[in-house]
Amino acid sequence: MLIVIALGGNAIQSSDRRGVEDQWRAVSNAMASVSEVIAEGHSVVLTHGNGPQVGFLLEAFDSLPMTEPRPTLDLAVAMTQGWIGFMMAHALERELTKRGVRKRAVVVPTRVIVNSDDPQGWKPTKPIGRSYTREEAEVLSKRMGWIFKEDPRGGYRRVVPSPMPVKILEVDTISALLQGGFVPIAAGGGGIPLARSNGELRPVEAVVDKDLASSLLAVELRADKFVVLTDVGGVAINYKRLGETWLRRASTKELRKLYEEGQFPPGSMGPKVLSCIKFVEATGKECAIGHLEDAYRVIKGEAGTTIGE
Amino acid sequence: MLIVIALGGNAIQSSDRRGVEDQWRAVSNAMASVSEVIAEGHSVVLTHGNGPQVGFLLEAFDSLPMTEPRPTLDLAVAMTQGWIGFMMAHALERELTKRGVRKRAVVVPTRVIVNSDDPQGWKPTKPIGRSYTREEAEVLSKRMGWIFKEDPRGGYRRVVPSPMPVKILEVDTISALLQGGFVPIAAGGGGIPLARSNGELRPVEAVVDKDLASSLLAVELRADKFVVLTDVGGVAINYKRLGETWLRRASTKELRKLYEEGQFPPGSMGPKVLSCIKFVEATGKECAIGHLEDAYRVIKGEAGTTIGE
Repeated sequence: MLIVIALGGNAIQSSDRRGVEDQWRAVSNAMASVSEVIAEGHSVVLTHGNGPQVGFLLEAFDSLPMTEPRPTLDLAVAMTQGWIGFMMAHALERELTKRGVRKRAVVVPTRVIVNSDDPQGWKPTKPIGRSYTREEAEVLSKRMGWIFKEDPRGGYRRVVPSPMPVKILEVDTISALLQGGFVPIAAGGGGIPLARSNGELRPVEAVVDKDLASSLLAVELRADKFVVLTDVGGVAINYKRLGETWLRRASTKELRKLYEEGQFPPGSMGPKVLSCIKFVEATGKECAIGHLEDAYRVIKGEAGTTIGE
Repeated sequence: MLIVIALGGNAIQSSDRRGVEDQWRAVSNAMASVSEVIAEGHSVVLTHGNGPQVGFLLEAFDSLPMTEPRPTLDLAVAMTQGWIGFMMAHALERELTKRGVRKRAVVVPTRVIVNSDDPQGWKPTKPIGRSYTREEAEVLSKRMGWIFKEDPRGGYRRVVPSPMPVKILEVDTISALLQGGFVPIAAGGGGIPLARSNGELRPVEAVVDKDLASSLLAVELRADKFVVLTDVGGVAINYKRLGETWLRRASTKELRKLYEEGQFPPGSMGPKVLSCIKFVEATGKECAIGHLEDAYRVIKGEAGTTIGE
């Protein structure tokens, strides 16, 4: 069975900044779970988020003198793909070796074409990087063309668009590597976004949701299952409210209704549920959402929420 | 013919800091040269340096408050592989398309096992990052375990070992991708160095010379030719001195003698010449060193220096 597994940011580090040793520990734990699935004989493609890491890089660039040229956001995403991908590949091979599995992990830095015609997705809504004073925001807005929005917690934050992914450029590469028996690690941070303009594909300063990009990749690879691993136990109605109910199984029809009722918050469970719905609708196969530590049982449908037609 | 082409740092940017637009321009020029070689029907593996880029990242991390945890050097190398690899892949595909060639470039973040038994290679000799005051150096030495050396130009710089590469972990991946018709971009910055300790491979804070790593990769891939492209026209005796003589052809025996006489400086032409000698001695095939802009002619032996048995 070919399984695409999307790992949340918690697979690498929590949102509070931590040292390199802590990162290795978190990655190793996550890869231990994943390696059990591979040891069962499944083909696996791993994808991952990059929120805390891209935030760290942007903060470091911001600490440089204001006159210094800064890498654009697409380049920062490419950096996190190299960084996190290396840690995952290295830790995964170690965990596989422990379990007697001789397989090589391969990092596939991934580009993704986004929908440049959708005005909704092209609105700058996604805050990135740190909070600035009004004066700093004005300077950066002039110098770099950045767009800022007032942060409810004070100050101003840069906002970028979060357009829909429509095609993963590295699908053929990933297929070739799967055929060769490798474990590809791809679509990191949702991929490096490219938009078509004047007949050419150009990198854009935007953020692609990593679950939506992973779902697209799973569809394009004709995966048998799409699994989203995160830091909660599955999908719940009235999450953390009166009448909280965890779903063990749900149909896309039920979930779409709950999604439209606003049950799942935008930056969190929302895109996970939407990316599962998209995968199931496109393939007729099942999707599962659950806790990273239960990876093995979530994939078997023994934990988390399984979503089918 | 399978050709491994190593690109110098000048393929991406000169040592004076430049903006993202300049980087794209430099990469596009370099990839235009390379695409002509691919358009001729050759299989190509590209490798690249990362000196200015890793320097930039270290400087950005250094601008963060001293209490902030910093990524280790191996992680910074992994970041530059993602960053530079993405730019090269994207620019190369555009140049290939212009020439009517439909081939996909693939970034292969690469790990390299270094010789951990060689005491010479394990001495911290390679300066990285910026210059520090004595006080800063003392703090960082205590907190991070970094080793510092006085900089002849003033201040103190961190020094790391530059051990010999002995095995490229991603050779099978790169072979599989070549067979699939892809153009792999690999061994960026000499690769992420790993050393064996207690039976495990662990990342180490060291710098692998990118020409030596590229030569090793060319040997392991059984390449038909190894080409080092840089910002000078080839190998010269008495370079920039009285009696300067450019070599059009040389044998490994002649070159080894000149190398041992100290004709080629350590951080510059030295490792390029040594990596060529190693490739020719291991394979019996030819190596060429020349200017990036002459790529096409250097590979044909019409420019630069060709080194044979």
